[in-house]
Amino acid sequence: MHFPTERIAQQMTFLAEADKLKTVLRQTLVICADRQENTAEHSWHLILAAMVLSEYLVAPVNLLQVVKLLTVHDLVEIDAGDTFAYDAQANTTKLEREQAAAERIFGLLPTDQASILKELWQEFEADTSPEAQFANAVDRVQPFLQNSLTDGGTWKMHLVQKEQVLKRMQPVKRTLPELWPWIEDTLESFYGNKESL
Amino acid sequence: MHFPTERIAQQMTFLAEADKLKTVLRQTLVICADRQENTAEHSWHLILAAMVLSEYLVAPVNLLQVVKLLTVHDLVEIDAGDTFAYDAQANTTKLEREQAAAERIFGLLPTDQASILKELWQEFEADTSPEAQFANAVDRVQPFLQNSLTDGGTWKMHLVQKEQVLKRMQPVKRTLPELWPWIEDTLESFYGNKESL
Repeated sequence: MHFPTERIAQQMTFLAEADKLKTVLRQTLVICADRQENTAEHSWHLILAAMVLSEYLVAPVNLLQVVKLLTVHDLVEIDAGDTFAYDAQANTTKLEREQAAAERIFGLLPTDQASILKELWQEFEADTSPEAQFANAVDRVQPFLQNSLTDGGTWKMHLVQKEQVLKRMQPVKRTLPELWPWIEDTLESFYGNKESL
Repeated sequence: MHFPTERIAQQMTFLAEADKLKTVLRQTLVICADRQENTAEHSWHLILAAMVLSEYLVAPVNLLQVVKLLTVHDLVEIDAGDTFAYDAQANTTKLEREQAAAERIFGLLPTDQASILKELWQEFEADTSPEAQFANAVDRVQPFLQNSLTDGGTWKMHLVQKEQVLKRMQPVKRTLPELWPWIEDTLESFYGNKESL
């Protein structure tokens, strides 16, 4: 293909590469279809959730920054794959795999944009800025909602223990405390006194 | 499910309903897989493209507003389905079908948020604000890129004429003129002197 400038060529190459995120499968199930969710549609759903739920933030954030974090946060999965949150072994190699992926994938862009997008990914992963903390909380809420509406979803399929879910959901308690009773009540209704489903 | 407040219940009901956008199929093909793209993953790809391509805007825009428009712009397709851009007959009933869909889908939210999201959809459709014009331009660029990388994609499958594509792509000429030579050159390389592929 012929592009007016090398810069546009690099940007279009990156956008075409990003298309591959539509084929990366997560463990979470789509609520309304008998299939796993892919990471591209997951990312869109998070952005919508951030728009709807930002009113529960205790302190205001820069919502554009949140959206940028959510848009790029999983692009590394094109190379590194989705690492299931409750797979302890896979998580030991996650950072290394994802760092290599970030170098290659963001590196398709012009240098200045590559740096900016890589920094967004790093900010999300660091989970320290108010924007990253909200983005991470939303990244917990959405799969939780889907698991709760697919008969326990990945909790049941992978025998995830109630304590593991509670630990995983701590960013919600921290950043969106008004939603926390829903988390606790839902887990109570699924698990009751059992440790796994 | 039990929610702390009626407001949270409405918001979660809306977010669960939005999940259905992952099953709405567009005509456009995913570049890297032999299948049609769904509207949720398409929406994410547009947001990423807006982030990367905003530097080509002739006049600056509010990028957060652009992202909001792109996030909600196709939610009505949950009820109304995706209307193929080059299907003249289906487009005669599109507005009516989508208006009814907007009432129902955004109406799942608390009244204040329902109004805000419906207005975002209307702003995108009106295509008059600088933000809507950029969002609409990006909504042309992304399928164009995918068609160009899938051997002509929908242009070939539906025998779309070169003049129809050129007309459809006018928002790019208007809002992202630096990309226009790429549009023309690509169509020239696909169509040459032919009117359809």
